[in-house]
Amino acid sequence: MKRLAILLSGRGSNFEAIADSIKRGRLPARIEVVVSNLASAPGLDKARRRGLKTLVIPSRGVPREDYDRSLVYELKRHRVDLVCLAGFMRILGPLFVRAFPNRILNIHPSLLPAFPGLNSQRQALEYGVQFSGCTVHLVDEGVDSGPILLQAAVPVLESDDEESLAARILAEEHRLYPQAIGMLVRGEVRLEGRRVVRRF
Amino acid sequence: MKRLAILLSGRGSNFEAIADSIKRGRLPARIEVVVSNLASAPGLDKARRRGLKTLVIPSRGVPREDYDRSLVYELKRHRVDLVCLAGFMRILGPLFVRAFPNRILNIHPSLLPAFPGLNSQRQALEYGVQFSGCTVHLVDEGVDSGPILLQAAVPVLESDDEESLAARILAEEHRLYPQAIGMLVRGEVRLEGRRVVRRF
Repeated sequence: MKRLAILLSGRGSNFEAIADSIKRGRLPARIEVVVSNLASAPGLDKARRRGLKTLVIPSRGVPREDYDRSLVYELKRHRVDLVCLAGFMRILGPLFVRAFPNRILNIHPSLLPAFPGLNSQRQALEYGVQFSGCTVHLVDEGVDSGPILLQAAVPVLESDDEESLAARILAEEHRLYPQAIGMLVRGEVRLEGRRVVRRF
Repeated sequence: MKRLAILLSGRGSNFEAIADSIKRGRLPARIEVVVSNLASAPGLDKARRRGLKTLVIPSRGVPREDYDRSLVYELKRHRVDLVCLAGFMRILGPLFVRAFPNRILNIHPSLLPAFPGLNSQRQALEYGVQFSGCTVHLVDEGVDSGPILLQAAVPVLESDDEESLAARILAEEHRLYPQAIGMLVRGEVRLEGRRVVRRF
């Protein structure tokens, strides 16, 4: 059974989708620890209510490399196989990425490579695209630039504001993230260059 | 009846889709002139066979501004309302773009802003995206950066090569381009910043 760490800074709705998927027997993995850089993250409470182990590693004022080192230490100590970023609002440096090569996942609310970074939904609306979506990708040393595991597309409507577009994308995120984790923990995919392909 | 110019350098399959759409009474416009920078472009023959006026303005070795000036002269002489780039492989400069403000359309085989420039299908495959598509946009002074009129999304399959992906996108292009021209010639849309919105 693969051991997951979830890293979050906010409400943790993607964390809940993953936990629900495990509970329903659809995802052969267990959540070993839920980590946040913010003690006030509502996602931590949700994790505790589910009986999961939580850990706060405060990031404020901590240099990136020191922070990465603490995080790696804790995750290695918990013998984590896969690190799932779920609204974790702290950028992780090379030290962290190299400690878990191709073992860190992130979900991003756009069809990457379009609209990386923050406020993707606003970027999409301001650009005037008619399709957006979400992307689960492996984390490399760039910003939202790693190999893509899964994407889902949604239409952008003329009546959309940031909130309505974010909600439409979020529904797809909750479906997509557990599915992408499942592909990895079941060993269904391998990397060819930066393309993720199915094993047969 | 709005007067169109089509600019092409290749086989002209999008030109044919536009011409067919007009012939079937679905697009209230007429093609005033089909222009190519290459005398050998197969699209020119197709235009002649349809009884349309064609014009070759060779671009080889001609400085951009001189070329733009010749093109503007010819299109103004034909009292063209809308300029439709359909596989025109010469970059047009500010002089040309400013002569037809928001009156030049292009079709691009990706979901812009992803994969602008050349070989979009190859770029998409190498990046490893799971959705691509095509975009009809107004031409501004950047590369494939103008306001979006219409987009269509298509899945990228693991078995795809450049050719199969290009073919899937091209089918959408032929549907989308006449539709986008129709929105403009019927005056159905207006610009809000860089967003294209419907008039009510």
